[in-house]
Amino acid sequence: MEFKNSTITHRANVYHDGKVTSRSVITAEGEMKSLGVMLPGTYRFSTQAPETMQVTQGRCRVKLADEQAWTEYQAGESFSVPGNSHFEVEVDELVDYICHYEVGI
Amino acid sequence: MEFKNSTITHRANVYHDGKVTSRSVITAEGEMKSLGVMLPGTYRFSTQAPETMQVTQGRCRVKLADEQAWTEYQAGESFSVPGNSHFEVEVDELVDYICHYEVGI
Repeated sequence: MEFKNSTITHRANVYHDGKVTSRSVITAEGEMKSLGVMLPGTYRFSTQAPETMQVTQGRCRVKLADEQAWTEYQAGESFSVPGNSHFEVEVDELVDYICHYEVGI
Repeated sequence: MEFKNSTITHRANVYHDGKVTSRSVITAEGEMKSLGVMLPGTYRFSTQAPETMQVTQGRCRVKLADEQAWTEYQAGESFSVPGNSHFEVEVDELVDYICHYEVGI
């Protein structure tokens, strides 16, 4: 699977001392994505635009801002996060992900 | 800086338990690149095709297969590695890099 005719920024986005890194991509259709890796650990991320996190490798548990329970996600599964919100994620097995930003749609 | 009209593979390349990860890119000109991140640590990489490693963030020291001394490289600097060889790298500060593969040139 790949993004064709896309623009990828050279510089990595680095979070949590490098335990989470990503690359920003603009697809041929003008959609904003990021391709990222999360190493095992616990993280909290805030959102501006709504986004969908697609897990392509690994396993994690996620708790959205307005939820009490943690939900597990594995390769092939996705979860959506509202805009102006946040989510917590516990990464059990290195997670490779695609973040789909719902910007300007 | 960015690669326009390129193809980016979704799946990350993962090495050394995730301490080194990269994304494979084919540029509009058909050149093979990878955009990667190396966390602090010591690594050894083998090469097939000759390659040039361009450091875009961070700092490391490198020893090529046929050298005794370690050479330091920082953001904005590059080092070339012959094909069918290897190099050792000691990452002092998270390194963000572009690997330029001399394939089919």
